[in-house]
Amino acid sequence: MSVPQPIRPVILTGDRPTGPLHLGHYVGSLRNRVAMQHSHRQFILVADAQALTDNADNSARVRDNVVEVVLDYLSVGVDPDATVICLQSALPALAELTMLYLNLVTVARLERNPTIKAEIQMRGFGRDIPAGFLCYPVSQAADITGFRATVVPVGEDQAPMIEQTNEILRRINRMAGRDILPEAEAVIPRAGRLPGLDGRAKMSKSLGNALSLSASAQEIAQAVKRMYTDPDHLKPSDPGRVEGNTVFTYLDAFDADVAEVEDLKARYRRGGLGDSVVKARLQAVLLTLLEPIRERRLELARDRAAVLDILRAGTAQARRVTQTVLEEVREGLGLFTLPG
Amino acid sequence: MSVPQPIRPVILTGDRPTGPLHLGHYVGSLRNRVAMQHSHRQFILVADAQALTDNADNSARVRDNVVEVVLDYLSVGVDPDATVICLQSALPALAELTMLYLNLVTVARLERNPTIKAEIQMRGFGRDIPAGFLCYPVSQAADITGFRATVVPVGEDQAPMIEQTNEILRRINRMAGRDILPEAEAVIPRAGRLPGLDGRAKMSKSLGNALSLSASAQEIAQAVKRMYTDPDHLKPSDPGRVEGNTVFTYLDAFDADVAEVEDLKARYRRGGLGDSVVKARLQAVLLTLLEPIRERRLELARDRAAVLDILRAGTAQARRVTQTVLEEVREGLGLFTLPG
Repeated sequence: MSVPQPIRPVILTGDRPTGPLHLGHYVGSLRNRVAMQHSHRQFILVADAQALTDNADNSARVRDNVVEVVLDYLSVGVDPDATVICLQSALPALAELTMLYLNLVTVARLERNPTIKAEIQMRGFGRDIPAGFLCYPVSQAADITGFRATVVPVGEDQAPMIEQTNEILRRINRMAGRDILPEAEAVIPRAGRLPGLDGRAKMSKSLGNALSLSASAQEIAQAVKRMYTDPDHLKPSDPGRVEGNTVFTYLDAFDADVAEVEDLKARYRRGGLGDSVVKARLQAVLLTLLEPIRERRLELARDRAAVLDILRAGTAQARRVTQTVLEEVREGLGLFTLPG
Repeated sequence: MSVPQPIRPVILTGDRPTGPLHLGHYVGSLRNRVAMQHSHRQFILVADAQALTDNADNSARVRDNVVEVVLDYLSVGVDPDATVICLQSALPALAELTMLYLNLVTVARLERNPTIKAEIQMRGFGRDIPAGFLCYPVSQAADITGFRATVVPVGEDQAPMIEQTNEILRRINRMAGRDILPEAEAVIPRAGRLPGLDGRAKMSKSLGNALSLSASAQEIAQAVKRMYTDPDHLKPSDPGRVEGNTVFTYLDAFDADVAEVEDLKARYRRGGLGDSVVKARLQAVLLTLLEPIRERRLELARDRAAVLDILRAGTAQARRVTQTVLEEVREGLGLFTLPG
């Protein structure tokens, strides 16, 4: 007799596979995924189709990073027995849901989406936005509802996307006359965003201020060496600033010994503590964090077939889930269904 | 040993299932489909997904007309052994191709599409165009390329759609570095457009000036009786105008006896021929045309399961064709494909 499973909230999360994941991803999302994978039913979507909305001319980059991103997941401790890892472009139901949802959203509404507005400006698209880019909030609504996700971890700037999703699913539920799709909640991680090595607000590979999850001991040492601290802290004896000092921000994020970090902060503020001492500690902390990830990654990468098996199995499972949702949405919207 | 088939040009055609087909469809497309189904490889798409782009709140109308439209096809002589009749929303590859193509077209380009511009105005959408409606030329490009159609019969106003399709497929061929998709040619039927019963340029159910293909003898009689002729032709003895006289336009379209029609025209122009005589002839011609269609339709409608079988078999065949194209496009665009 099988024991009934308690109903766990469903999380959908994922990444555009456009480059290796880095420490910013780890703090902002990856470690949460590992922490939540047993208390939640978790789907991680490798969003290759979404990555193409602004990489149509750069598809090799997307293609080549699919397996890399899966390796990143597995290396940090995402457990494929607990978490479904799946490939967006191999889930036709998501494209079909997107097509249906596009009829329920006006162009004006999409153009008003603050995330889209900001990203259009950032990318300098002007009027030459790819239609797929304008429509990607709808595609995201398809992803979220396709898994019936109720918990969607996002950055602050992505919260309007979840509102757009809820508008769509409420309309569908109204049209169907019953609650086919559950509302989704944007969950903004408390840890917030890890600054780049240079102290800029965001760690990003394209900004050149990222530390890859697969960094070697030497790369970690180099990264820490060039990290931004307090530019006015010239001699160890000078009093130093801790706020906005990236090394301390990282210690707060990664050093488990909170008391020791507080003590270092106090000494740094007073003066008498050199950057090199704090950096040596951070280097050790990062090495302790990243070395096992790196080693697991190297080991997993040796058996690419096994990684593909994990992605294939997850995608097959995701296909069943999303296909069922598609059928219910089709029925709810009153589409014709060929019997048999 | 199987005999190799000669390569026949591929036609894609179809209808939005929003109402019963009428005499205008017969002249503009249906009879061409019957004529070309053996010299061409023909696919007829019941475009229910496209119909939803401006019928999202009216899906019952779309759903309920799917089988009706298939009945119309079969009644006029579309042969399911020669022509593949398939349901758009049951072909996921078309949605997937659309999603890929949306990345290759800018919003500005879609807004410049003359057909879309005209239709937006006609429907009074303003800025509240459903995104699906703005994107439907891309969906149409997916349909055309999904079947590798090279011949696409369209109304004059739809020719820009085919240009849009060719722009997309050229870009894909360029990106793939080889000709994956053949260029499509818009074929505008010589017969042109049949005016409505009231003389207006277009026959349309919503304008109330259409004669359904399943019209009874009585409905035909009534329709012909109220047909627009020459408003200045008051008495039979008056000279009458033939140009713009709907009854003569219809005789030109349907009466096989061209000499007799020319003779009637001459007598009508001279004066001495009453509308009732010409109308009686047209009524007989239409009855001869429509009676067998109506009878076949009634007979076919008695076995709805057989009609569904035809649609199901056609859709299964179409699924194989479109799936193969999708795989080639994905490969050409350099997407990641899960092996096995």
